Amino acid sequence: MSHAAEIRSGDRRALARAITLVESARDDHRLAAEALLTELLAQQRAANQPNSIRIGISGPPGVGKSTFIESFGLMLCDLGHRVAVITVDPSSRRSGGSILGDKTRMEALGRDPRAYIRPTPAGTTLGGVARRTREVILVCEAAGFDIVIVESVGVGQSETAVSRLTDCFVMLVNPGGGDDLQGIKRGIMELADVVVVTKADGDLLGPARITAADYGAALHLMRPKWPDAYPDVLMSSIPNHTGVPEVWVAIQKFIRDRTAAGQFENQRGGQARAALHDELVAITIDRLVSSPALHDAETSVVNGTVLPSAAARALLN
Amino acid sequence: MSHAAEIRSGDRRALARAITLVESARDDHRLAAEALLTELLAQQRAANQPNSIRIGISGPPGVGKSTFIESFGLMLCDLGHRVAVITVDPSSRRSGGSILGDKTRMEALGRDPRAYIRPTPAGTTLGGVARRTREVILVCEAAGFDIVIVESVGVGQSETAVSRLTDCFVMLVNPGGGDDLQGIKRGIMELADVVVVTKADGDLLGPARITAADYGAALHLMRPKWPDAYPDVLMSSIPNHTGVPEVWVAIQKFIRDRTAAGQFENQRGGQARAALHDELVAITIDRLVSSPALHDAETSVVNGTVLPSAAARALLN
Repeated sequence: MSHAAEIRSGDRRALARAITLVESARDDHRLAAEALLTELLAQQRAANQPNSIRIGISGPPGVGKSTFIESFGLMLCDLGHRVAVITVDPSSRRSGGSILGDKTRMEALGRDPRAYIRPTPAGTTLGGVARRTREVILVCEAAGFDIVIVESVGVGQSETAVSRLTDCFVMLVNPGGGDDLQGIKRGIMELADVVVVTKADGDLLGPARITAADYGAALHLMRPKWPDAYPDVLMSSIPNHTGVPEVWVAIQKFIRDRTAAGQFENQRGGQARAALHDELVAITIDRLVSSPALHDAETSVVNGTVLPSAAARALLN
Repeated sequence: MSHAAEIRSGDRRALARAITLVESARDDHRLAAEALLTELLAQQRAANQPNSIRIGISGPPGVGKSTFIESFGLMLCDLGHRVAVITVDPSSRRSGGSILGDKTRMEALGRDPRAYIRPTPAGTTLGGVARRTREVILVCEAAGFDIVIVESVGVGQSETAVSRLTDCFVMLVNPGGGDDLQGIKRGIMELADVVVVTKADGDLLGPARITAADYGAALHLMRPKWPDAYPDVLMSSIPNHTGVPEVWVAIQKFIRDRTAAGQFENQRGGQARAALHDELVAITIDRLVSSPALHDAETSVVNGTVLPSAAARALLN
């Protein structure tokens, strides 16, 4: 059986091997990965396999992302879906360390044969994550996962990257965080299609209600991402088993509305176009980095004798 | 007198015209801007003009950036410096609108003949801002401003851009915001060389002290940006006239320490190298955007028949 056929037959080890191939930095692996992906895409088209739903889930550390995704993912499996969870965990730009690192999260979901959890390899840059996660999504879809969840840690830039890979972006927020909506979080809220206030139980139920109302009001003051479609703001409690089905309903409604308005296909097309542009940039840089002329240009620019823009133009001519 | 000579003689209108030229998107303006900048750089080298200090100042909306910068800038003028303030105000990615828009800020500093305030033109993207602000800094330096302040609004990505343009990055924070250090703000704190808790007067003096202590403790838990050099955490009150001289002392000490360790020149060199890479990318995209082959590649990628990475490779070969 070919590698593509193995993946499509549901072979987990073939899937894992394909993802490792996609993530590899080696040139020969890259060509093999592209050949494999091209074959998978063709088989998917031939089989008329329906579109999956790609869901981005993000939120600050401690908001309960893993707990939420485990509960959400198990519910989707019980509804007959096959769920892939890809965790995007870019190394911090400077520290080189990992923000997560907890490998024991989402244990029940990880053991479920209807689900598949794939962490980002350690040491990958955010740019590298965005570039390859897109292809990891395609492999998971070809392997029959009809819901792909991309989880990102709330550190600003990774949300933007994830929102450019997914159909619906779910933002988890803590109870009591509503007053901080101005400023730093604003840019992230602009990406949200659904907002979920977590931990809405016990002593935090009251603050969660206030936070949900605050976010709802604030989101109505912002220009909506989609015309006349303000994000739903919901509350969830995992211990109380409340809110998770409501989030799934809100996502389904969101997907239906976007599809009806032609925006679903449109967004996916725009994302594919953006991925092409990102690849053009990344390949150009890769090639230039290995050119001796770049080294000379860098020296002149660092000495301040040549302007970066003039040096760049000379280099490309 | 040539345009370059006019700028170096202190002619304000010549300076403003040069910045407008640098910011222009027209191809002929670009070539003229590069010629002008190259001439200015050569004259600066010939005159042995000392390095200016480039200071990034950032913080969330409402933290009091303009109030602080006005007071700080006037103090520097009184110390004999000439101060240029460049405000980086990228349009929000989606809304297309301006976050600031208040043109009447920093009135006293704006009227001071020893200072020059330049807002970012409306409608510029963050990428465009970063690309051109670097050259606006060079023009201001050539015009004799020995301290260049780059102000950015606290929305995450613009801080990173500003920190890559400046020698010392000052982060302003509100009293009472210390408990939110985890998560979203963490990435921004990693950029800070000096932290200033504003509004440290009246009822907020107590919370400001707690916040300063919290940030100090938290910063000591993070890996410092420069080996063994933890950022100073200070407090300021503009109505009480306290803290602003201390910030200047902290910045001078920071610059002296970095210079002694060879890190000042090293950082500037790294920034110039990064600017060259950014220009290479931007010029490559500009050229590809006008190519008919890109349009065909986009269509295939949007239809899902070709992978973005494969299409990019074919396009570049």
